[in-house]
Order: sequence, then structure tokens, then C-alpha cells
Amino acid sequence: MIGLYLEEIEIGRIVELGHHHFTREAIIAFARQYDPQPFHLDDEAARNGPLGVLSASGWHTAAAWMKCYVATNQAAEANMREQGRAPAAIGPSPGLTNLRWLKPVTPGDTITYRSTVTGKRDLNSRPQWGLLFSLNEGFNQKGELVFSFEGKVLTPKKPG
Amino acid sequence: MIGLYLEEIEIGRIVELGHHHFTREAIIAFARQYDPQPFHLDDEAARNGPLGVLSASGWHTAAAWMKCYVATNQAAEANMREQGRAPAAIGPSPGLTNLRWLKPVTPGDTITYRSTVTGKRDLNSRPQWGLLFSLNEGFNQKGELVFSFEGKVLTPKKPG
Repeated sequence: MIGLYLEEIEIGRIVELGHHHFTREAIIAFARQYDPQPFHLDDEAARNGPLGVLSASGWHTAAAWMKCYVATNQAAEANMREQGRAPAAIGPSPGLTNLRWLKPVTPGDTITYRSTVTGKRDLNSRPQWGLLFSLNEGFNQKGELVFSFEGKVLTPKKPG
Repeated sequence: MIGLYLEEIEIGRIVELGHHHFTREAIIAFARQYDPQPFHLDDEAARNGPLGVLSASGWHTAAAWMKCYVATNQAAEANMREQGRAPAAIGPSPGLTNLRWLKPVTPGDTITYRSTVTGKRDLNSRPQWGLLFSLNEGFNQKGELVFSFEGKVLTPKKPG
């Protein structure tokens, strides 16, 4: 995470991941491709639907988190390289738990994401990697929590 | 689910959701937009990476599940309408848990998804809706489980 090796990452550390703006066009384009339910596609259907408002697919909110997470990490890695340091890149994720879509994300919303380190452990199967645990959250422009999940990601250990 | 009201859905029911084929082009296009990590973008970087092979973003595997899930439900709903019956449309999801990316999804893979009903309950806050719980799985063409999660979705109760 942010170019650091597992040993360098403190539990409790909060990493701001930036934000993503959800336009009506992007909400509808994502929904057409992956989640074409009426309340993600059409204002009137959404008004009469269970949320009462056009909202982004939950997978869109999640994919935008990923975009912000990768961008934040890659910017930190590039910055370390410029300083002549060798960054640790994040690895793949074996999964996540307790994903919650708490409030609709609607056209014009800007969601600000952050990640809080909650734990880490070694991996017997992969001595060069560990597992980093985090609580990930997304807040809208009113400061309301709209999205969260508990993630885990393979993270490199210091070489040698 | 498949046009049925909460009361009509049996626990243990398995719904086949169809399949999604992952091309190299689509894997890279999704990754460029939402998850531009080297092991989702470039064969050589992937070969030297933690999975040893170019793989789809886990969010791409999840979004393809959603596409198959919505298509299966909408086809069942259309079929009921043709028969003069009033289908129940699925509602939004408040979240999920225990999402697992078990094996890489690679270019040329076809993932077959299914959903097994695991539980249901009423909602005090919304008398016309209940919550349907399911185990969702994706298998590759070798029959290997590559993706799973435990989902929940708002499901209409019989009117009146």
C-alpha cells in the first residue's frame, strides 16, 4: 500500500484515496453494460422504484473505489521512484467481506474514498508476501457514508 | 428472483445464470478503466507478477455475474408477462459478504454463474419487501470454482 512493504505499514493508518464524480451519463453507461435494472437506467422508473431515485449500480461504486485505490497507490509508487526508492506494488486480492451499499449514489454525487489499515499477517504459502486487512469507506459530498467493505490484499514483504 | 415473489421462492432452489466469456480485449478494457494494475493489463508484467498470468480484475468477474443475474431475471420476467402473469422484479441489494476470488480468470475463460437460495426474511422497515439470501458462484470451463459470494437482495412480497 502506497509503495510500502508489509513491515512498514502501521495498523490504524488512514490512506485518503481521492474521489470519483458520478455523472448521469456514466451511471447509465455502466448500468447498460453490467446492471441494466430500471432504477439504474431511467429517472421515472427509478422514481417509482424501491429507492425513489436514479442510482448507480453498486458494482459501479465499487469499481470507482478500485480506480481511486489503484491511482493513489501508483502515484505514491511513482513518487518513491522519483526519489530513488524502490516501491512495493500492491498484489491481487483473495476476497473481501461485509460489503455494504448504505445509501444510493445518485447523478452529480462525488464519493470520497478512504482506506484504514486494520490488520496484517504473514502467509505460510507465500513467504515473500503477507496479507493486509483494511476497512474501506466511501462518503458522499454531504459526508454520509454510502459504501464500505473489509478488504484484504497480498502485500510484498521486504526482500532479503 | 426469476419473477417470483418472496413467498414463492424455496430455500435450496438453484438458479442457473448463464455464462460470460472473457476476451483479452475486454479484460484489458475493464482494467484500463477501473483497475489498471500491471497484472490485469500486460502479459509480460503478469508473467512476472504474483499470479503468473494475465487475469481479469476481480470487479470485472463480479460485474459479469451481475450482468448474467439481471439477464436471467429479466428473461424470466418477460416470459411470465408473455403468459399473462405479473412478475416480481428484483430490488436493490444492501450488501454482500464473504466474496472470494479463488482462481485467476484469464483470457479465453468462460465463467458459468449460478445462484442458490440460502434464506429469506421479512423486513420490518419495508412491509412490501423481504430480504432474499443467496450463495453465488462462478465456475470456469474446467469446472473450477473461481468466484463466490453470499448476497442479499430486496425482493417483493405478494401484493395485498
